Formats: sequence, C-alpha cells, structure tokens
Amino acid sequence: MRLRNKAWAEPLIAEHPELLVTSPNQFKGKWQSRFEKKQPLFIEIGMGKGGFIMGMAEKFPEYNFIGIELQTTIAAITLKKQVEAKIPNLQLILGNGDSVTEFFDDNEVDGVYLNFSDPWPKTRQAKRRLTHGSFLKGYEQVMKADGHLEFKTDNRGLFEYSLVSLNEYGMAYDQVWLDLHASIEAEDNVMTEYEEKFSKKGQPIYKLEAHFMPTGNLE
Amino acid sequence: MRLRNKAWAEPLIAEHPELLVTSPNQFKGKWQSRFEKKQPLFIEIGMGKGGFIMGMAEKFPEYNFIGIELQTTIAAITLKKQVEAKIPNLQLILGNGDSVTEFFDDNEVDGVYLNFSDPWPKTRQAKRRLTHGSFLKGYEQVMKADGHLEFKTDNRGLFEYSLVSLNEYGMAYDQVWLDLHASIEAEDNVMTEYEEKFSKKGQPIYKLEAHFMPTGNLE
Repeated sequence: MRLRNKAWAEPLIAEHPELLVTSPNQFKGKWQSRFEKKQPLFIEIGMGKGGFIMGMAEKFPEYNFIGIELQTTIAAITLKKQVEAKIPNLQLILGNGDSVTEFFDDNEVDGVYLNFSDPWPKTRQAKRRLTHGSFLKGYEQVMKADGHLEFKTDNRGLFEYSLVSLNEYGMAYDQVWLDLHASIEAEDNVMTEYEEKFSKKGQPIYKLEAHFMPTGNLE
Repeated sequence: MRLRNKAWAEPLIAEHPELLVTSPNQFKGKWQSRFEKKQPLFIEIGMGKGGFIMGMAEKFPEYNFIGIELQTTIAAITLKKQVEAKIPNLQLILGNGDSVTEFFDDNEVDGVYLNFSDPWPKTRQAKRRLTHGSFLKGYEQVMKADGHLEFKTDNRGLFEYSLVSLNEYGMAYDQVWLDLHASIEAEDNVMTEYEEKFSKKGQPIYKLEAHFMPTGNLE
C-alpha cells in the first residue's frame, strides 16, 4: 500500500517523539524504558494504519506492543490515532522492518506479528518476502527462546511459500488456519483494516502460528 | 465412502489373484516379481475406485504402481476396470493401509500417495488420520531415503492438521498448494473420482509434497 506523502505527516511525527521513534537503533535493548510497565513485548512488522496493533494493545494491557512501519504517511496515520488514544502500552517505530536486529537486542522480544505483508509475487523477489529465511533468522535472534511468530495473509501464493519457508528453516508449527474467519479462533481475532475489507468479500484469511526450535538454524 | 457389499465382488476377486492380492504380507520384499519390469514402485493408500492409481499407471509406464483399498466392494470396482484395462504396471491390494510395514519391506517403496483420506474430524479420532505421526513412521520405514509423500484433500480441517503433523514429525515440505486446480501444476494433475466431482463445485483442492529428513524420527 502506497499513499502520497501528506504535508501534515512529518510535522506530526516531529511533534510526538514520546509516541513514535524515528531512530529506533538508539533504543536497542532499552525499549522497556519507553513504557509505563515492564512487561512482555510484542512487535508487528508492517503495521500499516495500525488497526491490529492498536486493537491488540487495548485488548492486552498486560503486554507492551510496538508497531513498525516503513512509510512516513502511513505511520503518521497510526500516530494520529495514537495521539488521541494515548494507549500506554503502545509505541510506534518509523523504520524498515528488515532491520529488526538493529532495532532490538537478542531476546528482547516475546513475539512477532506479520499481517498481510507484501507478497512480492515474482520468484526473483522471494528474498524480500518477510517470511524468507533471512528475515526468520532476524526474528529468531531478537525473540526469546519461547517466543512465537504469528502470520496472517489473504495471499495464497505468499502463504504457500511461507509454509515451505518456515518448515525449511526448521520452525515448529503450533497451528495453521486455512480459513481463519470460519474457525472458532475467529472470535478472538483482532483484524487489520485490510483484513476487514477483504474478508467481507468472502476471501479466506490464512494464518499460522509457529516457534523456533532449540536446534534451529541460528548461527 | 461406504458401499453395500455387491454379490459379484468376492467371486471377481477370487478369479483374479494375478491382478489383486488379498494376502499382501506374503509378497513383502517381493513386489517387483509381480510386475513385467523391475522399476520404481509407488503406492496409493486408500485408492477408492482407482481413478487416480490407474491414471498414474497409464501416464507413467516407466514406474510400477500398487493401489491399496480396505473395502471389498470398492476394491472390486477398481479390479473390474483393471480386468478390462490390464495395465501391466499396476497391482491391487485388498487390505488395510494401516499395515504398510507388514506389506512392504524397508526401502521397498519409492513414493506414497494419500488422496482424499478419511478426515476423522473429531479430536479423539486424530490417531486414525493417515497423516498422524504413527502412520508417517510406517511410510518412512517402507520408503527409500529419497522417497516422497504426496497428499491431496479437499478437507480443510484434515489439511490444517496434516501441515502441523508432518512438520512436527520433522518432514521437509517440497511444495504446498492451497488451490491446486488454480495452479500451473493442475495440468499434470491426475484426478481421483472424488476430486473431479468436488472441484467442479469450486471447492479448493489442497495438496502437499514432502519427504523425510535423514535426521528424521525413525527409531
């Protein structure tokens, strides 16, 4: 999703360093200091307009959440909502989700969410998909040993690819859903804006939950 | 699928021991002797009315195939067609696919097909599903080290379960299809009778191809 840059976006971001971080490397290993309470930390890579991460933060006040977004205008759309909502257990990052190991220390994170990531459908683009082995290695590094990865998408090709990629990396699947909204877990599912729109059209939403194995590939 | 026993089924089976084996244990380690040519051997567990295994045998004369079916009348329906077709690289077994390790010697098989297996949908029935770990162990034992398992189903719950079960067992996925008939591989896909019927209704057919790892769970 690309939006034209809005004139209000950069000034809003400049005004709210307490809610949105533009130099995330400086908080590596110190993210808990930005929250009211020290509690388990979950991150979403590619938060988009923030519907999911804000919904999660409101639903689970006993956890801390960080939403990461690469695009200035989109991050600012989430920030605008957070300026109003002031959810205390939510922080935002304007930055590239590629770089989780630069933003977070080893074992600093309790869980990673990927929602409706860019499918990069061409074969030669596979290495850009956020479920490619090179990214999985980064998630493994920043996550605690018992951390979990949750991934949702409506893109069939990306989900097919991801099932193979995570398996190949040696991750263990906790559960797989091939039509999340038809499952009993739909009740507890916090939807993204995109998910709400597309599931209304009757397209299945795929989801998987997986964790790294003690004998994983981390070098 | 259950059919009433047909009066003609048992006499037909008794008439054709050269095409259908009712005491498969006696050929353990010697299946190649029942074919014209010694060539790689693929088995289907639960062949039903035989559309898939007969189609495969005709399409790939350079391989040998064995279809296994538990139910007498259904096995006899396939046999009836094979009495006409006399496909030289196809043998049939009336027997329980549970027992592959009693029917086949270690490393005797080059590949295993499971098509539209009984979903056994209740949680307490999970151990009867043909993708349960206890069955995977049997396939691993009878298959050569480079052998592959191919599994197709239209049952979402069974496919979700199987993705987790094979991953947990330590199998490596070669490829996953979440809508086989919409993929480029559809062209080469040999359909079962059931598949033909259900795919016409627009239901997606799921498929996976996987192999055992040298470091698998075989004890």
